[in-house]
Amino acid sequence: MEHFMTTAYQHLRTTFTRLARFEHLSAIAGWDMQTMMPPKGNLARSEAMAELNVLQHQIITAKQVGEWLQQAQQETQDDIEQANLREMRRHYNNAVLLPEALVEAKSLAGARCEHAWRQQRIANDWHGFAENLREVVKLSREEAAIRAQAAGVSRYDALLNLYEPGTNSADLDRIFGDLKQWLPALLQKVTSKQASEPCLLPQGPFELEKQRQLGLNVMKILGFDFDGGRVDVSVHPFCGGVPQDVRITTRYNEQEFLSALMGIVHETGHARYEQNLPREWLGQPISHARSTAIHESQSLLFEMQLARSKEFLQVIRPLVIHQFGEQAAFNEHNFTALNQRVKTGLIRVDADEVSYPAHVILRYEIEKALISAEIEVEDIPALWNEKMQQYLGVDTESNYRNGCMQDIHWTDGAFGYFPTYTLGAMYAAQLFQTAREAIPRLDQDIANGDLAGLFNWLKNNIWQHGSRYSTTELITKATGEPLNPRFFREHLERRYL
Amino acid sequence: MEHFMTTAYQHLRTTFTRLARFEHLSAIAGWDMQTMMPPKGNLARSEAMAELNVLQHQIITAKQVGEWLQQAQQETQDDIEQANLREMRRHYNNAVLLPEALVEAKSLAGARCEHAWRQQRIANDWHGFAENLREVVKLSREEAAIRAQAAGVSRYDALLNLYEPGTNSADLDRIFGDLKQWLPALLQKVTSKQASEPCLLPQGPFELEKQRQLGLNVMKILGFDFDGGRVDVSVHPFCGGVPQDVRITTRYNEQEFLSALMGIVHETGHARYEQNLPREWLGQPISHARSTAIHESQSLLFEMQLARSKEFLQVIRPLVIHQFGEQAAFNEHNFTALNQRVKTGLIRVDADEVSYPAHVILRYEIEKALISAEIEVEDIPALWNEKMQQYLGVDTESNYRNGCMQDIHWTDGAFGYFPTYTLGAMYAAQLFQTAREAIPRLDQDIANGDLAGLFNWLKNNIWQHGSRYSTTELITKATGEPLNPRFFREHLERRYL
Repeated sequence: MEHFMTTAYQHLRTTFTRLARFEHLSAIAGWDMQTMMPPKGNLARSEAMAELNVLQHQIITAKQVGEWLQQAQQETQDDIEQANLREMRRHYNNAVLLPEALVEAKSLAGARCEHAWRQQRIANDWHGFAENLREVVKLSREEAAIRAQAAGVSRYDALLNLYEPGTNSADLDRIFGDLKQWLPALLQKVTSKQASEPCLLPQGPFELEKQRQLGLNVMKILGFDFDGGRVDVSVHPFCGGVPQDVRITTRYNEQEFLSALMGIVHETGHARYEQNLPREWLGQPISHARSTAIHESQSLLFEMQLARSKEFLQVIRPLVIHQFGEQAAFNEHNFTALNQRVKTGLIRVDADEVSYPAHVILRYEIEKALISAEIEVEDIPALWNEKMQQYLGVDTESNYRNGCMQDIHWTDGAFGYFPTYTLGAMYAAQLFQTAREAIPRLDQDIANGDLAGLFNWLKNNIWQHGSRYSTTELITKATGEPLNPRFFREHLERRYL
Repeated sequence: MEHFMTTAYQHLRTTFTRLARFEHLSAIAGWDMQTMMPPKGNLARSEAMAELNVLQHQIITAKQVGEWLQQAQQETQDDIEQANLREMRRHYNNAVLLPEALVEAKSLAGARCEHAWRQQRIANDWHGFAENLREVVKLSREEAAIRAQAAGVSRYDALLNLYEPGTNSADLDRIFGDLKQWLPALLQKVTSKQASEPCLLPQGPFELEKQRQLGLNVMKILGFDFDGGRVDVSVHPFCGGVPQDVRITTRYNEQEFLSALMGIVHETGHARYEQNLPREWLGQPISHARSTAIHESQSLLFEMQLARSKEFLQVIRPLVIHQFGEQAAFNEHNFTALNQRVKTGLIRVDADEVSYPAHVILRYEIEKALISAEIEVEDIPALWNEKMQQYLGVDTESNYRNGCMQDIHWTDGAFGYFPTYTLGAMYAAQLFQTAREAIPRLDQDIANGDLAGLFNWLKNNIWQHGSRYSTTELITKATGEPLNPRFFREHLERRYL
């Protein structure tokens, strides 16, 4: 028998399609803010984006949506519809808790803080930045308190769950605690080993247009679809836009081209995930990327597992020489060494994969304390310096610009995001090792620039599933077990010892 | 006595501020579609923009808005508030007539037709284009019929009023009829005069980056605020964005740089109007540019009255030589002749100001017949060719690409727009002559590159008023009389005979 009435689920589908359309405009206007917008556009843009945020919040929290979610539970659905409904419910529950005024205030305070930060960072102006950040922290704490009470978890865990549903700080404390046990010794060993094998640095300048061309060539090899995306320049590299139109960014430095190049590889990993999300479900929550950590696992798989492997570096090397000509630093041995150098430093995004987790653990510890109000904004610089000394042995005293002001995340209240970088690195190692076992001659294929096998594996095991499964289900289906940090440790030991 | 209740007018202000924020997103997403978006983004973008259009339509046509407009008439307002209210009422009345389904259908059909046109134009594919255009025309006729009935005017006049409130086709028939009397003879005279004084063409190629630099330098002289705007590349040059962030575009040709340069000057005229709209009223309808014809009067004042004057050409000339080096074509006499050449051709946007009105009259006559259903889409190419032969003596048979497919306007149903180009040219001549009489040594100042006096005059007389006055009031206040086509004729005769 056919039903001629519109079901609650169908109403929900229509509502979420509408939301996806507004999200599209938000994504493009957000990308434009970072890449194209002149400074005087900021206030009006922030107001427009906040207005849109409020609208999206109103649409998803409408009383009817709650009622349809109830009714839809009584209706019959197939597996996919059930998964879509689960994601709808998650989005609804996350949104319905927040008062509209808080949504708007967060949006405006975040835009203000982020925009001012661009200049304040250059000026090393911690005091100016702290003033805006205090407001962002105040609002994030309000949000965390509301979410924590509803979920019966800690305030920080409530925010963490927005980025990585199902994870909590007890898990993170365990995982990061384990890392803190073995990573410092490994870091020490690797740096002294590499100290005895100095490598040549490429001699610049490297013309920006040639760097851009090199980046485009590598993106082509990595399968980026240029009919459905772009690459531009921004202060803080990111991957934005929508699955049909993915916008990645990088930043160039005339004296050093490898950071921008590896940044492009990284963002291309994000981009291919977006470009290969399930087309048939686009506009529905089930079509979204699974989580921030899974997203990062794709970018880090591209950058760390694939592109910095000695096999793939031999694919990139001739392209580098083609743009910049031969030089000693580009010989096979040195080029690999260059791209596998481990060197502790101040900047997270420039960190190698061995020291990177220390940057994350430091931020995790500080933001957790900040959200639970154990510390205040004023306490950040001293804590930052103390932990940088302790974990990486570097000094950031008074160097706010390259210390606690280096990242964009806190400027718009993305507390709970940082830990997902290291979870992503671990998932990447686990996925890549599984792919290596599944694809007979993977390393050889990579050395030949043949990435079809790897990309098919990723498409089949990760990309095409969107949010159909939970993170743990997805990883277990792909690799036979849930997150296992041993793959990450084994990867680091194999590559660097 | 103070009123503590929110007045109806205050409710309206809030509503229109909200509308302006959504319009901001629409403007930026629209700009992005023309300049940045890769092809696969088009469908999702069109859907997102249509959803936004529907939302804007819902907000402005809400029952409450109608009630507030009624109530606000009983409240006390100052002159500015009254003018703002008048504009609010106009927007409301224009919107409330249209059913939501028609708004959405028009938005989608326009986006589809425009996007396909980009390729179809290149391929000279009239039949493919006509199929999409038929749908656009059908929906525009529906719209025109609804508006015509409500306003008690003809269908075409109802659309014309969206762009130039207060104008009708009886006026246009009179003005264009007069033009058709004297312009062909003038065109004839000028072309035979110029035939006896051949001028040298600049020898290319002209590197695109140098063209871009030249354009930026000229924009600086013209006072474009780069902190509140950008210049990019698009197939069809335009001025978009919002007053706080004005986005102009151009298109470059390596063999010929003057079109792109004068295109930039033209769009900079639009941009300065936008950048100088009254800041204190931004977000309210009174802050909008007065009309399409007044907008065009500013771009044509910049391009035709100012930039192609022999005085200003001597300011540009050294900048051209600085980028491209000396050549015979750049000598003072030849450079002026080059930029004042009159040469009938196929393309409206490349036309000189003497033959330009013929392009407009042709389009006006065709679109008027199309909207009133005297002709159908199929009839356009033959009519186009006939009128091009008659008015300009050129053949467009089977050359759809450079004939009836050359413009973007009809692709998204902007019928009624074309006549405002020639009205704009007339207003520009009238305004410039008045400014010349008001500013003692204007021509000398221009020759010295000192444009402050002219820009102040424009700011005081046009830009800062936004939509405070009707077009006729604005022009009468600025020049002492309503539109008088004699200024345009005198300008052409003075410059070209």
